[in-house]
Amino acid sequence: MSPDRVVITNDIRHILGQYLQEHSFSGIAVLVDENTRQHCLPHINELLENAVVIEIPSGEVNKNLDTCKLIWQLLTEACFDRQGLLINLGGGVIGDMGGFCAATFKRGISFINIPTTLLAQVDASIGGKLGIDFSGYKNHIGVFSTPDHVMSDPVFLDTLPEKELRSGFAEVIKHALISDAEYWPGIAQHEFSAQDWPSHIQHSIKIKKQIVAGDPTEKGLRKILNFGHTLGHAIESYFLTHPGNHLLHGEAVAAGMIMESYLSADKLGIPGNEVSEIENFIISVFDKIPISEKDLEPLIDLSIQDKKNEKGIINFSLLKRIGQATYNIPVSRLEMKEALRRYMSIR
Amino acid sequence: MSPDRVVITNDIRHILGQYLQEHSFSGIAVLVDENTRQHCLPHINELLENAVVIEIPSGEVNKNLDTCKLIWQLLTEACFDRQGLLINLGGGVIGDMGGFCAATFKRGISFINIPTTLLAQVDASIGGKLGIDFSGYKNHIGVFSTPDHVMSDPVFLDTLPEKELRSGFAEVIKHALISDAEYWPGIAQHEFSAQDWPSHIQHSIKIKKQIVAGDPTEKGLRKILNFGHTLGHAIESYFLTHPGNHLLHGEAVAAGMIMESYLSADKLGIPGNEVSEIENFIISVFDKIPISEKDLEPLIDLSIQDKKNEKGIINFSLLKRIGQATYNIPVSRLEMKEALRRYMSIR
Repeated sequence: MSPDRVVITNDIRHILGQYLQEHSFSGIAVLVDENTRQHCLPHINELLENAVVIEIPSGEVNKNLDTCKLIWQLLTEACFDRQGLLINLGGGVIGDMGGFCAATFKRGISFINIPTTLLAQVDASIGGKLGIDFSGYKNHIGVFSTPDHVMSDPVFLDTLPEKELRSGFAEVIKHALISDAEYWPGIAQHEFSAQDWPSHIQHSIKIKKQIVAGDPTEKGLRKILNFGHTLGHAIESYFLTHPGNHLLHGEAVAAGMIMESYLSADKLGIPGNEVSEIENFIISVFDKIPISEKDLEPLIDLSIQDKKNEKGIINFSLLKRIGQATYNIPVSRLEMKEALRRYMSIR
Repeated sequence: MSPDRVVITNDIRHILGQYLQEHSFSGIAVLVDENTRQHCLPHINELLENAVVIEIPSGEVNKNLDTCKLIWQLLTEACFDRQGLLINLGGGVIGDMGGFCAATFKRGISFINIPTTLLAQVDASIGGKLGIDFSGYKNHIGVFSTPDHVMSDPVFLDTLPEKELRSGFAEVIKHALISDAEYWPGIAQHEFSAQDWPSHIQHSIKIKKQIVAGDPTEKGLRKILNFGHTLGHAIESYFLTHPGNHLLHGEAVAAGMIMESYLSADKLGIPGNEVSEIENFIISVFDKIPISEKDLEPLIDLSIQDKKNEKGIINFSLLKRIGQATYNIPVSRLEMKEALRRYMSIR
């Protein structure tokens, strides 16, 4: 798997136009949802006169096989061949699912990602993890395959609801916590409204690319990117099937990072003041998630299905210090339960 | 993609036992259909005491997403993690679909193929093409990914219906026609009942591995393996949706090779006596397929969806001589229709 070619631009139309001129595709399709069709497609529409627009309903609940079938069917009806291009214009759901559909259509056609959310720009569009949810589990079916190109333009963030911006911020925080202690104060000393997004995008892409390049298929080092995600994914999956408590990915991961900081203290001895710093800052930005005692066992059961577990042991990626993560730390059900309870008790 | 590790053995139990001893899998599942469960599983059953047996209904009609969902669901319920192994015990359908399910479950677990039909031993199990049928098109959704190991044992051929053996024979014939003129007389001078299967298996694996190694993802050279398959696949797909005329893959490809030999004469000037040799030998082994005038347009339409086509042009892999193939030869609808009609007129 080659490393992602990622460009950050202030002129997406120019960059995409150049790319399409340099390549000769037999057909072009653009995958959008109702939001990116309205707010993002107009930025590039004039380059795509003959393109097939495939619109799917937005949201993680639609990141499933039924939506893939729709995408594959429309590519088929458009007589797409292996020299076709799929442009994924949207957030993580569009990028992950569109990439999976492209990587499996006729055993693989070209695709590029134009991430339109902060979350997708700083995380989902980098690293070649593609997939869909299945049977209640996140990204349960998928492949590793990198887009031919990733083109990020901060202009797309202007139309983003604040909630979405906050969701992406969780991954920015994570990247500093797992591998850049020096970058952390610049985040933690500012309120949410005073964050420097262009700088954060640049920084997150750099960190994530470095980590992925050393371990593209997650045999080892790459697992540190899962900090906050073992419990975070479980929380996200759990509330996905409990309507009325809809959570964004980053909101769940933010809670997961607090809980996994507690585990980091138990298992790796991260200093207590650093745990407090993490807890206080995250709670100042993200609403606390209403988890109650009855949710604990189902949440732990969901964690066991997580892809990074091996042989029934629940392995976590945890922090030794702010800026230093390590992986494959086995944690018992009881310890997980305690971390969840400690989160529940935050005032 | 690494080249397949393929072993031909007379003692599958020993080879598989050794493999399982050398590796430490967190879980093992065996994919079978009702036929391989009855006839093939007993050969290796004692090695697999703790394995999950996943039985799916046999046949190309079940090589679809619904069956994949069943396989993924059972792997999930067995709490399979990324250190698990899926053993595909069966013919091409089991190998292609089981491989696709393994390559996409949690973004990829280990899998080995134990091909139990001649067709799978000489063709489907080699080369890393995985996939399922979709929307009436063969292998429309899939990936390139090689099994960790392929273990072929001729013992499995003993229980095979003659029709299945004949189907595999079509690919043996193809391998000689596209790249080994010297091997051809040894095939063509014997009746079906006098063919030397162990020698043919060895020869076919050698030829196919050589071709695939030079072009694993079918950018060029590998396309010669599609000789007989552009029209052959169309015929197979067409009769799949017309119950009562069920065709095996090799039966369709055999007809495709005759038709594409006619095209080889038109486009590349293969000598007429070689076309006659191919036509006569294939017709002596395979029943003629009852194609009528009304089938021609739908068959040609199906060919256009074939994965090896680019930009609406129908590209064929054809023969310059027996033993020499070339690829990307554009053929018009009219020329295809003429080849189909010439086949129809064989007495």
